[in-house]
Amino acid sequence: MPLTLVSLTVTMKRVMKQHFLLAMSLGVSWNAIAHAQDLGNFRVAELGRCMLENGTAIDPCRMGFRTFGRLNTDGTNVVLFPMWFGGKTSELASKIGAGYLLDSTKYYIIAIDPFGNGSPSNTKTPQGGFPLFTIGDLVRVAYRLLTEELHLSRLHAVVGISMGAMQAFQWAVSYPDFAERIVPIAGSPQVTSYDMLLWETVIRAIDASQECRSCDPVRVFAPLIYLLLQTPEYRVRETPPEQFPSFLKTILDGERQDYRPEDLKSQMRAKLKHDVARPFGGNLEAAAKRVKASMLIVVAAGDHIQRPEPAREFARLTASRLVELQSDCGHLSTDCDAKRLAAEVNIFLGR
Amino acid sequence: MPLTLVSLTVTMKRVMKQHFLLAMSLGVSWNAIAHAQDLGNFRVAELGRCMLENGTAIDPCRMGFRTFGRLNTDGTNVVLFPMWFGGKTSELASKIGAGYLLDSTKYYIIAIDPFGNGSPSNTKTPQGGFPLFTIGDLVRVAYRLLTEELHLSRLHAVVGISMGAMQAFQWAVSYPDFAERIVPIAGSPQVTSYDMLLWETVIRAIDASQECRSCDPVRVFAPLIYLLLQTPEYRVRETPPEQFPSFLKTILDGERQDYRPEDLKSQMRAKLKHDVARPFGGNLEAAAKRVKASMLIVVAAGDHIQRPEPAREFARLTASRLVELQSDCGHLSTDCDAKRLAAEVNIFLGR
Repeated sequence: MPLTLVSLTVTMKRVMKQHFLLAMSLGVSWNAIAHAQDLGNFRVAELGRCMLENGTAIDPCRMGFRTFGRLNTDGTNVVLFPMWFGGKTSELASKIGAGYLLDSTKYYIIAIDPFGNGSPSNTKTPQGGFPLFTIGDLVRVAYRLLTEELHLSRLHAVVGISMGAMQAFQWAVSYPDFAERIVPIAGSPQVTSYDMLLWETVIRAIDASQECRSCDPVRVFAPLIYLLLQTPEYRVRETPPEQFPSFLKTILDGERQDYRPEDLKSQMRAKLKHDVARPFGGNLEAAAKRVKASMLIVVAAGDHIQRPEPAREFARLTASRLVELQSDCGHLSTDCDAKRLAAEVNIFLGR
Repeated sequence: MPLTLVSLTVTMKRVMKQHFLLAMSLGVSWNAIAHAQDLGNFRVAELGRCMLENGTAIDPCRMGFRTFGRLNTDGTNVVLFPMWFGGKTSELASKIGAGYLLDSTKYYIIAIDPFGNGSPSNTKTPQGGFPLFTIGDLVRVAYRLLTEELHLSRLHAVVGISMGAMQAFQWAVSYPDFAERIVPIAGSPQVTSYDMLLWETVIRAIDASQECRSCDPVRVFAPLIYLLLQTPEYRVRETPPEQFPSFLKTILDGERQDYRPEDLKSQMRAKLKHDVARPFGGNLEAAAKRVKASMLIVVAAGDHIQRPEPAREFARLTASRLVELQSDCGHLSTDCDAKRLAAEVNIFLGR
């Protein structure tokens, strides 16, 4: 294959991969396709034994890292970039260059592959997965890499996205004298009850896929529904992180009543096929022309269980009154805004 | 047990049950605790054979329904209330009465238990679950119940919430001469790609729990992450419903690369424990006092993968510049807003 074609294929594959990648990532900027990609220099640091917060160790402890640009003579242009969840340093090319997030013409960028991203940082780990490490552990190992391996005593900045931003916050607090600037992007210094609900749900869903026979579906179903039923704002406000275990128990107990999974699935399948315009080739306008009743259409603006867009459109097509509930209760706005809802409905019914 | 205590216990149990119930529901208004509850009159209609859109039948076809209030002499005060997803008519008490959503002092309210809600409408169904029924099927069966069983030829209104609102939209189009008023609340006339992603994910999560041994976790993981990675607005706009199957295939293929579930879980567990304030008893202010670096903190306002609240608070506590990305790309705002992000970060790094 001609080299240009190989290169194009590789670029496209990387672009495709980045775009759909594991999430949490930035994905790729599509204009990066036209951008000459810098793969940096990849190395692996052998750190021997890495002690973890929980008292166990990863040994041998290998950390893959990748550098872009050049270290200046006084060593004052180092920018550390810890990776996002599931991210590998090999996916960074689209963010590198003048005018991009990481300007390798000015800065010497060090990107580190964390444990658990499938990179060489994982090589010697047992099949069963890593011992429980923390964001603090990732930062401590990175600190060892920077000081013991690269003999650096100072960073111009730490810039991180998502899980990388969690690490950036940790750097700010754990090593306050090491980095002059810290830029956490779409990350957090502390987990919220909403984040806990999210990752608890995802872990349970993966667990269920790996080994389940007649498991209790509520274990996954309940947290998954509550993840979307109200807004994240509502969850964060109503449930402090320390109350998360009792919140989780309450929703599991609440859902574990007299519902059979097959029943639930039958209704979900009905919802999945729902389209009043199906006899009209999906044309909502044609369906709307059939309507003779007077309609009052109520939607919840922040609803993640039932999207309001088609209902809004139907209100427009039928010239119906549209009421938008604006609470942060999401799909349960009908409960939080029960008084306004009852008033609107009763006025309408009495006309 | 004294009757009042029994009654209180039953009321509390029902209230608790309603509040945490299966979701999609309104839950209960807590002020309804003080509200004398009307359980209505429950009956079951024997409809013989109910043909479904897909050509199969439910036979015998029994529909449970519950009435509240009194039919007036000219039969002009009937309000139909089709139930929400997973809802039973026995859960309606808190919405009934003068000043509530359904005013049983004025209207004769007929609430119908749909197939698949665990009520007597399910009694004779096989253990394996229902044949594939549609929202249209639920409406057609309800129409038979109203006309054949109750000999009604007209409805004052149809009022429905969530899956009940889907049925209300269907009533408006399928039987345009039957109801004078239609009130769909938090429902939709058409499924969107976001709704499809949601219910596809939930069904897969339940399926995985029921029967999985070394299943491919990406089958659940990928749709679950994409449910939250961008905003629903973004998904609805970018993916027309007819493109949903190819969208789903693309994200599954994209995620099914070189990630091991154990690796993913190790990083999620690290995220779940993240708290820079842990050494300070969870006190973010104390943690913030440790910071010496200058910080630029970037959050995405509509981020459902990483809640911005703690990062905003940390910006306040450290008097750092806070940049809020406002696109509808959710956690991927860092990609959609890549130019602004790069500009902000590079100005900050160059100071």
